[in-house]
Amino acid sequence: MMAASKVQSILITGANRGLGLEMVRQLAESPGPARLVFATCRDPDAPKSKDLQELAKKHPKVVTVLQLDATDPCSVKEASNQVGLRLQGGGLNLLVNNAGVLAHGTLQSTSNQDMQDAFNSNVLGPMCVTKEFLPYLRAAARASGQPGMSCRKAAVINISTLLASMASVSQAYAFFPAFSYRVSKAGLNMLNQCGVEEFRKDEILFAVLHPGWVRTQLGGEEADIDAAESVRGMLRVMESLSEKQNGAFLDYQGKSLPW
Amino acid sequence: MMAASKVQSILITGANRGLGLEMVRQLAESPGPARLVFATCRDPDAPKSKDLQELAKKHPKVVTVLQLDATDPCSVKEASNQVGLRLQGGGLNLLVNNAGVLAHGTLQSTSNQDMQDAFNSNVLGPMCVTKEFLPYLRAAARASGQPGMSCRKAAVINISTLLASMASVSQAYAFFPAFSYRVSKAGLNMLNQCGVEEFRKDEILFAVLHPGWVRTQLGGEEADIDAAESVRGMLRVMESLSEKQNGAFLDYQGKSLPW
Repeated sequence: MMAASKVQSILITGANRGLGLEMVRQLAESPGPARLVFATCRDPDAPKSKDLQELAKKHPKVVTVLQLDATDPCSVKEASNQVGLRLQGGGLNLLVNNAGVLAHGTLQSTSNQDMQDAFNSNVLGPMCVTKEFLPYLRAAARASGQPGMSCRKAAVINISTLLASMASVSQAYAFFPAFSYRVSKAGLNMLNQCGVEEFRKDEILFAVLHPGWVRTQLGGEEADIDAAESVRGMLRVMESLSEKQNGAFLDYQGKSLPW
Repeated sequence: MMAASKVQSILITGANRGLGLEMVRQLAESPGPARLVFATCRDPDAPKSKDLQELAKKHPKVVTVLQLDATDPCSVKEASNQVGLRLQGGGLNLLVNNAGVLAHGTLQSTSNQDMQDAFNSNVLGPMCVTKEFLPYLRAAARASGQPGMSCRKAAVINISTLLASMASVSQAYAFFPAFSYRVSKAGLNMLNQCGVEEFRKDEILFAVLHPGWVRTQLGGEEADIDAAESVRGMLRVMESLSEKQNGAFLDYQGKSLPW
């Protein structure tokens, strides 16, 4: 049945559109034990967040919409305070660093500004969010009473991309260079691997997921699969993760990808 | 004898100390055909650049010291103009992106400022320098008359680190986290792989080298080898590169490293 059905509390960044929104939807609409989904985005009151607000209205006990701009430490701190109030001493089981930006361009055509934007959103953002929510993740790990690691216990999932695979650049660079995206997501992958080592003793699992090439605003209209299929797959993969997959780089079908 | 003996024109960033300075020294002191070495650094007139200035005085026909701050596009442009004047229409055979910074700290303890400094020096810097000197590299490739790729023809060598290997984080993270360094150098590795694809048609070789753990200001006193041994190895490796090693990640002994 529903993949992540035993996850109790989940925070997703970039939840107002694309994969983030679809993940909130599937988590809210699936049967299973009670869960709390913190659906965060930069501008929850903007027109572009209307779909998320409607989803939250349909599932008021499950979905909490919160303002969180991962590139603004004050905003992350405030969101963390709000989450703390709602968790009432409980922990956060799963953090999904999903928010990110993609700009097109080659090494030659990419501007420093595009590089900086990608670094802010795809590296510094996940770093700041991970640091800020760490106490809640630790609390969840301690409270679980379960041995080992899992997304039901305490985990950080970083949504990255096959485009960040050093070994795979030759496959698509000619028609999809996305230089700043690749460089920043390679940085995110390294962040993940450092997290693996740094938080192993806390029993917090870290993994990198490639959502596939998805028809979203970011992925474009020509992509292979729709967001529903990608998210169904990713939730299934998340549910399957144990300490054996700590530090894994997997696609939405669970296939291991090369760094 | 001397490894890179057929290289005609070479530019090295961060050439006033450590590996950069030693590379200039070995290139200047080795026998072989005439060569031009552009030894660049941020503050050529500062006391910390005294050793480089003395070396240049000993080898005035070989070594040209130029001001180049890789994080300042104007400075890179001005250095490029100076190189252009001295090359007199000739190309640049080899660009060694050696300048870089290292800060210690874990994911938890690293500040945004350390992340930004590492990104500026270890990613944006090499990107800016590579873009700016590209016309000279292309000119060298066209002028060479040789088929294939080599550091004698046209190449960009990015000095990275085993610490940027995703597959190797578990080996040393506990005692040498260097989080910002690892993340930024992973980005540099991706820059290199994008360069491989983007400049293959120009017959410009791109490779990543790990200098070993070297006793320099950056590597510390406890390191394995001295700068002379590391540089001897790296120059030998550079000399050996052909199109088969385009996109390789090699240590100073020529051993292939995992991404």
